[in-house]
Amino acid sequence: MPPSGVHPAWLPPEAFRALGSRRVAVHAGGEVAGRVAAEVARACAAFGGSAVCTARTPAGPAGYDLLFRLGGAEEALGEEGFTLLREGGRTVVTAAGERGLLYGLFHVVRLGEAAFGAGPAPETHRPALASRMLDHWDNVAVHPVMGQVERGYAGGSLFWRDGAARGDLTRVRAYGRLLAACGINAIAVNNVNVHDTEARLLTDRIGEVALLADALRPYGITTHLSVTFAAPVLLGGLPTADPLDPAVRAWWAGATERVYAAIPDFGGYVVKADSEGRPGPFAYGRSHAEGANLLADALAPYGGTVHWRAFVYDHRQDWRDRTTDRARAAHDHFVPLDGEFRENAVLQVKHGPMDFQAREPVSPVLGAMPRTRLAVEVQATQEYTGQQHHVCALAPMWSEVLRFRPGGGAGPAVGELARGGLVAVSNAGDDPYWTGHPLAQANLYTAGRLGWQPDADPLALLDEWIELTFTPGRTPDPERLRAGVRAVLRGSWATYEKYTAPLGVGFMVRPGHHYGPAVDGYEYSPWGTYHFADRDGVGVDRSGTGTGYAEQYGAHWAAVYGSPATCPDELLLFFHHVPYGHVLHSGVTVIQHIYDTHFAGVAEAEAAREVWASLAGLVEPALHGRVAERYGEQVRSAREWRDHINSYFFRKSGVPDARGRRIH
Amino acid sequence: MPPSGVHPAWLPPEAFRALGSRRVAVHAGGEVAGRVAAEVARACAAFGGSAVCTARTPAGPAGYDLLFRLGGAEEALGEEGFTLLREGGRTVVTAAGERGLLYGLFHVVRLGEAAFGAGPAPETHRPALASRMLDHWDNVAVHPVMGQVERGYAGGSLFWRDGAARGDLTRVRAYGRLLAACGINAIAVNNVNVHDTEARLLTDRIGEVALLADALRPYGITTHLSVTFAAPVLLGGLPTADPLDPAVRAWWAGATERVYAAIPDFGGYVVKADSEGRPGPFAYGRSHAEGANLLADALAPYGGTVHWRAFVYDHRQDWRDRTTDRARAAHDHFVPLDGEFRENAVLQVKHGPMDFQAREPVSPVLGAMPRTRLAVEVQATQEYTGQQHHVCALAPMWSEVLRFRPGGGAGPAVGELARGGLVAVSNAGDDPYWTGHPLAQANLYTAGRLGWQPDADPLALLDEWIELTFTPGRTPDPERLRAGVRAVLRGSWATYEKYTAPLGVGFMVRPGHHYGPAVDGYEYSPWGTYHFADRDGVGVDRSGTGTGYAEQYGAHWAAVYGSPATCPDELLLFFHHVPYGHVLHSGVTVIQHIYDTHFAGVAEAEAAREVWASLAGLVEPALHGRVAERYGEQVRSAREWRDHINSYFFRKSGVPDARGRRIH
Repeated sequence: MPPSGVHPAWLPPEAFRALGSRRVAVHAGGEVAGRVAAEVARACAAFGGSAVCTARTPAGPAGYDLLFRLGGAEEALGEEGFTLLREGGRTVVTAAGERGLLYGLFHVVRLGEAAFGAGPAPETHRPALASRMLDHWDNVAVHPVMGQVERGYAGGSLFWRDGAARGDLTRVRAYGRLLAACGINAIAVNNVNVHDTEARLLTDRIGEVALLADALRPYGITTHLSVTFAAPVLLGGLPTADPLDPAVRAWWAGATERVYAAIPDFGGYVVKADSEGRPGPFAYGRSHAEGANLLADALAPYGGTVHWRAFVYDHRQDWRDRTTDRARAAHDHFVPLDGEFRENAVLQVKHGPMDFQAREPVSPVLGAMPRTRLAVEVQATQEYTGQQHHVCALAPMWSEVLRFRPGGGAGPAVGELARGGLVAVSNAGDDPYWTGHPLAQANLYTAGRLGWQPDADPLALLDEWIELTFTPGRTPDPERLRAGVRAVLRGSWATYEKYTAPLGVGFMVRPGHHYGPAVDGYEYSPWGTYHFADRDGVGVDRSGTGTGYAEQYGAHWAAVYGSPATCPDELLLFFHHVPYGHVLHSGVTVIQHIYDTHFAGVAEAEAAREVWASLAGLVEPALHGRVAERYGEQVRSAREWRDHINSYFFRKSGVPDARGRRIH
Repeated sequence: MPPSGVHPAWLPPEAFRALGSRRVAVHAGGEVAGRVAAEVARACAAFGGSAVCTARTPAGPAGYDLLFRLGGAEEALGEEGFTLLREGGRTVVTAAGERGLLYGLFHVVRLGEAAFGAGPAPETHRPALASRMLDHWDNVAVHPVMGQVERGYAGGSLFWRDGAARGDLTRVRAYGRLLAACGINAIAVNNVNVHDTEARLLTDRIGEVALLADALRPYGITTHLSVTFAAPVLLGGLPTADPLDPAVRAWWAGATERVYAAIPDFGGYVVKADSEGRPGPFAYGRSHAEGANLLADALAPYGGTVHWRAFVYDHRQDWRDRTTDRARAAHDHFVPLDGEFRENAVLQVKHGPMDFQAREPVSPVLGAMPRTRLAVEVQATQEYTGQQHHVCALAPMWSEVLRFRPGGGAGPAVGELARGGLVAVSNAGDDPYWTGHPLAQANLYTAGRLGWQPDADPLALLDEWIELTFTPGRTPDPERLRAGVRAVLRGSWATYEKYTAPLGVGFMVRPGHHYGPAVDGYEYSPWGTYHFADRDGVGVDRSGTGTGYAEQYGAHWAAVYGSPATCPDELLLFFHHVPYGHVLHSGVTVIQHIYDTHFAGVAEAEAAREVWASLAGLVEPALHGRVAERYGEQVRSAREWRDHINSYFFRKSGVPDARGRRIH
């Protein structure tokens, strides 16, 4: 349970009512299953049920309504799967491993009364992706520019404070419990940009990581650590970090041995190398496969994994040079290495080719490395999507990525191809609501759930979150509450997209902090993020006549994206430079689309604010007030976006709004 | 003398050769005159002359070549003036006050051998402006965003370190000596943005200010303090800072009494009120005259002065509203108050109506408040003029301001109207070269010299600085050295203007730090700094058809600036919005002017770099290297400016360069 004053998120006591009012037996043993027993006991104490913890599974009819038991076929269920069935008027959850039992518990919580009805038919659940991970971009020492949590919008770090691991880990345990309830099973506890202080977590400060691992382990969560590729030099005093140097390999082997001595179930390393100034194998003329395999080999004896980020590009690009295309970079760098990575090396690929924009195509890398374990990286923390001042429920976007089929209609979806799992950059911090904006909790929740089931209906997952968090059934007007929260969440990404950068062109944000509009903010910069708007048109030619990026896709998508005639409207300016008068599939011109969507996006944000205001009596007042306050900022900011972008394009194009609305 | 490792700036030992090789008598008494005697003694020891310190002026022919003596008519010379004449083969400097003697000494240093020639004719020197002040925007506690010196480009503060006044004041004394040699006689030792730590300098930390005052006093420099208008609330625990509240008035009287107990010759207060978020009298419905007079009255019994900044404007302007004009603000706020300020209140007015851009018109306030003591504020620290990475000698710009005649051809110049003196924001810090860029020393030097003589020829002042600093006469090729340094300094402001914002339009800098180009960086911001470029034209209509700012000037300038037909080219876009095809007085169109000047500006910067490189054997190697390194950055940055601005306007206008040069 979270400490006093901290919001219970999607596990309020009320969510346990159905379970807690039953007679429940838990056949439990071990640390993780012990959590199941404890949850059951607490729920039953609260809601009048009874909890029995049995040494072995009761045989025959017995005095319980719900049974959690270990057993069944491990091969079928794996360590994390479970079955749920009704037999003899009882509900039985069976798992082969303790973690399966824990996930089964939270499944029963989600089902509520439905877990005890005539149905459900026997169900078998197991995660589609074995690894469902959060990356925390948390610094141990507060960074002078980036603060304690890089791109964090929810207060300080949950793990670190005053330059060390927190002494009181109550909140970390509460976090682990929430994450287990949405299916997360791995956390990297420090920033991928590993600064000097954080580098030492690998060696003399591993004890602090062990404390965090101890707090997270009962919730089935393994702990991972971001490390610097330069560690052998920085920490080991070696003259090189060359991945093929025997001394370097020996240093990593020794360091890793000591890590596992401290944390026997340690998950592994996360590495950002040769990226935005971080050290990496390029300095030694080695490939990224050689770099990743160095760490994979050190981890292999212990079953650990290295997550190697594919976010490698030239961040000192010359904006004058239109032949260089940052979008091409990951494919150019990594696809030639397919097959060269160890099996315990996961290549962690951002879902789009750029950097977590509100609209990007799916990265072509995800369909192009069949012999490599790929993980899809998404960003729950809303760096480019409103920084938790704006409501922007991202599950629909992530779901589009996971259901995207790189081979076209027939082949497997990204959610099937991502053998390395799903990684979300966490949006949580020590804010009382965990995520700054209370509705941003939905992004954390759905990130976990989509990792478990990538083809899930994202709107159904949002509904799950709404039911758990707001327990509408306990309010005077459940349907109005459900409908209201749904209304403000479901279309929020589309709304955000409407009032920000148009038609997939991306960026247009204020440099550095990335909040608020600056149409030319990155236009003449070294970051490789341009829109090339002039008085005649806008967009980036990434077709065969341009940078050729579209040709990095398989034949189906290369053809679709390669021509303005077939390119989906929402990605048109990502792939093509077109005149303002270009007519979209929607029937309106690009310039009119810009005006229309920007007026509409603000209107939608204003309407959402009103919907939220109307829920005042149905939502806990403090939470309602926090969201209402953030809507004030969202609407203000959305109007700035609308007016900047409309004015910018009106001044450039000279085309008036066909509907005569005011453009400044 | 500066500590070891610190550059001697414009007082290298060599500059004292002519004086030091003579027989010199000093009729000295007191702390300041004691500095004269000490300088003479040191110079004579170095260069073989002899120094005699006499109790009274020797009568009749005696064994000396140069005499410094107190005497003469104080009324004619004032405390700071002096005469210089040749009599009987001797040079005699006579002053009525010790500070006059000190200034006479440095005058003799500047003259070098010429002080002992057949000439000069008898000369009388006294400062045109009684107050020649430096404002240091130094924080005691390092500010998390602004650092130790706000807009400082020369290292840390000369005065403050580790949250307190420096223990070793050797460098402060060396600084005082340099400033005396260019005529500065007042320093405000802390930032006008007074944060919590610095607020306490007024009260319990006044002892630290007293230490600084002690170090500066021997050089004729009085010490001033920036204070917060909210001090009675913040420090005094009063419920209000209302300037008409008797308790507030009593608090300031008491605080000021204690300041003078610690520093009997304390100069006074500097206040930034109701400006960019600082507290001020507006909160109490009081005028700025009432605010300033509150402090003036507290200071009056001790002869102190309050410097009240006129930099008051709405920094949360709506960019959509084209009727509001930040340029109007100082005039709108202050001119109606003319005559209401106490005589010991100085209204400190930035030289232009905006904020230290490379080109602005002269502030109309400077000609519109005859019954107020006005000071002209200039910015030696190069916030908007290259941040001491670019060479930008500002004396020619300041000179234009000081020689500007608000009434037109006949009336007095700004340099005559500024009864409150000249204030320069200092560009010095604890950098070994004092100013980061060694050539930026010239800005500090000429700021002081222009305060002494506002109608001086700025190029002659630059020559003075060159002679003192580089002592070309001691190098193998004096003329080449002189010509080279002149070449890189004299046109440097014009060069900088060419490659940055065109035709007086201003800004176009990167937000926040203000270095480097961002054409739209402030275009849709709340700061009131816009260019309104669209596909047809660019510029701000500040004529009668626009914001009416031009009409704040007297009839002559209102007419000149009010029409594009008469407005000087270099200010055209400050005053008018014109089509790209508008033909300038120079005969070229606005758009072609933009292209031409940006290509030319870079070419000039590149040429200056070559000239500097050619001086390698004639300049001390470390200094030569530092400047050469900065030229590398200047040329890189100038090219960015050129290409951003040319591309921006080419993309917007669609007009190709008439000379066919490459625009990206």
